[in-house]
Amino acid sequence: MRYLQDFDTGQIISLLPYTVREVDIIDFAHKFDPQPFHLDAADEKTKALGGLMASGWHTAAIVMRMKVDAYLLDTATLTSPGIDNLRWLAPVRAGDVLSGYDEVTAVRRLKSQPDRGVLSTKVSIKNQTETLVMTLEAAAFVMVRPTD
Amino acid sequence: MRYLQDFDTGQIISLLPYTVREVDIIDFAHKFDPQPFHLDAADEKTKALGGLMASGWHTAAIVMRMKVDAYLLDTATLTSPGIDNLRWLAPVRAGDVLSGYDEVTAVRRLKSQPDRGVLSTKVSIKNQTETLVMTLEAAAFVMVRPTD
Repeated sequence: MRYLQDFDTGQIISLLPYTVREVDIIDFAHKFDPQPFHLDAADEKTKALGGLMASGWHTAAIVMRMKVDAYLLDTATLTSPGIDNLRWLAPVRAGDVLSGYDEVTAVRRLKSQPDRGVLSTKVSIKNQTETLVMTLEAAAFVMVRPTD
Repeated sequence: MRYLQDFDTGQIISLLPYTVREVDIIDFAHKFDPQPFHLDAADEKTKALGGLMASGWHTAAIVMRMKVDAYLLDTATLTSPGIDNLRWLAPVRAGDVLSGYDEVTAVRRLKSQPDRGVLSTKVSIKNQTETLVMTLEAAAFVMVRPTD
């Protein structure tokens, strides 16, 4: 298990590739973002936008999964206070293979609750053509190693 | 259909209530955020955090659905450049009924592409006990009414 002390500013954590399937784009859109360009490839607005694209919230959720698989499940995480500067930079389409990395931007122990701290990271996600599709800055509460 | 001209700074758009089900919290977590406190009510970490809670990304996706149902599906939207200052302020738990509103914070026509503009909004979401659970600032590209 990784604790707050196991992270350092500037550390790069690679994320494993994730293939985005059309069926998942449509399923997510039906539940959470039923705009035509996330649901219906034949729609005129979809065609005008270059074809079906994943909801930006779907992409964000996929990136969370990439982070959980890469390191969060093995880290003493608590909750997260929030997200800054989420940018959707290019469409994510069916068949795209997303990859990227999370960079540690700050590690700060909390004075008010000394058993935990805030891990700040910036994630950068590209597709298989090396086009940057999404960046965001995340914060997570992480426990300090109990023996310290 | 609503176009950019149909929005004004300060305008408040009410969102319809949305009930969060345990089965949906667990389904979302399995797919996108399989940390124990989103998946397993019996886990020790979950108990320490006061019980099962929705992934913050699930809450964000639900709020997108509330916005789509309230007005985005009837608006000439294009894509979104991104999100600022997303804050998860309190846990969202099974059975919670989320409600709230979106406030228009800016309406700006693009000089570079005069057929469209940027609609900026700030959404505030509370639960059934009037506790604020999430806020975020969104931007969306919206078409200008063609006849103008």
